Amino acid sequence: MDNNDITNYEHIFIGIDPGTNVMGYGILGVNGKTPSLIAMGVLKLSRMDDHYMRLHRIFERVTGLINQYLPDEMAIEAPFYGKNVQSMLKLGRAQGVAMAAALNHEVPIAEYEPRKIKQAITGNGAASKEQVASMLQHILKIDQSEMPDFLDATDALAAALCHFYERQKPEFARGPQSWKAFIAQHPDKVKGL
Amino acid sequence: MDNNDITNYEHIFIGIDPGTNVMGYGILGVNGKTPSLIAMGVLKLSRMDDHYMRLHRIFERVTGLINQYLPDEMAIEAPFYGKNVQSMLKLGRAQGVAMAAALNHEVPIAEYEPRKIKQAITGNGAASKEQVASMLQHILKIDQSEMPDFLDATDALAAALCHFYERQKPEFARGPQSWKAFIAQHPDKVKGL
Repeated sequence: MDNNDITNYEHIFIGIDPGTNVMGYGILGVNGKTPSLIAMGVLKLSRMDDHYMRLHRIFERVTGLINQYLPDEMAIEAPFYGKNVQSMLKLGRAQGVAMAAALNHEVPIAEYEPRKIKQAITGNGAASKEQVASMLQHILKIDQSEMPDFLDATDALAAALCHFYERQKPEFARGPQSWKAFIAQHPDKVKGL
Repeated sequence: MDNNDITNYEHIFIGIDPGTNVMGYGILGVNGKTPSLIAMGVLKLSRMDDHYMRLHRIFERVTGLINQYLPDEMAIEAPFYGKNVQSMLKLGRAQGVAMAAALNHEVPIAEYEPRKIKQAITGNGAASKEQVASMLQHILKIDQSEMPDFLDATDALAAALCHFYERQKPEFARGPQSWKAFIAQHPDKVKGL
């Protein structure tokens, strides 16, 4: 089977790790309960001086990835805390343009804190990026030659895999049938019943 | 003359005051040295619970305004400081999706701090929003009946007018001729000469 042929998968998730110096991305294909790597990589922005050009490139690349892989959903790694208000504003803009690309193509967005992603992949919320990469390699059976030079790529792929795990949980199952089951199981979580 | 007919103007500037509760916008037409109001308004988002839906609406509205008025450039009111990192992240996202709409249509972006805009319009960087609105009404000869209920609209229009004033300065004049003149006038500001 050609791992890069998106028609081989029931679901496609795109993971994004947005930043204004490097943006990582990972594309995950899912058949049944089996996730597989389709592609991952980084967009390097640090050589560009112009802030708006960087934002433009993020928007264009995410738009291109969506057009190429037609993901069902997008998972974004989104820290809730930052060093200072300046860096959070910049990060928010990078997230915003990546989200705009998804929203413009009606791709739903889910966001996860880094700690949550690390916990989901390695079982340890304080795991290093290297540990996350190594675990991804194991889970997705990625050949060493396919491993990227930049950990932003594996971080993004980890966001997509974390989202897949969340989707596996019964309360996230989609469709009216699933909602009926969810309401039956969690009457306390549904307003107005 | 029909003030709303964009073909009557040499230049069009769009001003945006992005926020996650209300987004203000103002469209300014320019003939020679005379700026005129074309349109202004707000996009109210506070009734929407979903954060991504708000971002989507901002992107759609800014895209719609760009398609309708074909602005040459966009001016954004952008505070450099905020209460906390959470609010700055949210603001950054709102700015990011508005910027994505501009970048997606090759509309250059300029951003101005609120203090800078107030200074440019009223001569006082600490002016109130009401004072800014009142001054805009005077400068652009806006009929009282056209004044908006929400000061986010006049804030956005003020950003566009501030940008027009900046553009009037000789160092911002466009084209190779103007650059030659600028370099001749400001050799100290050009690197590598």
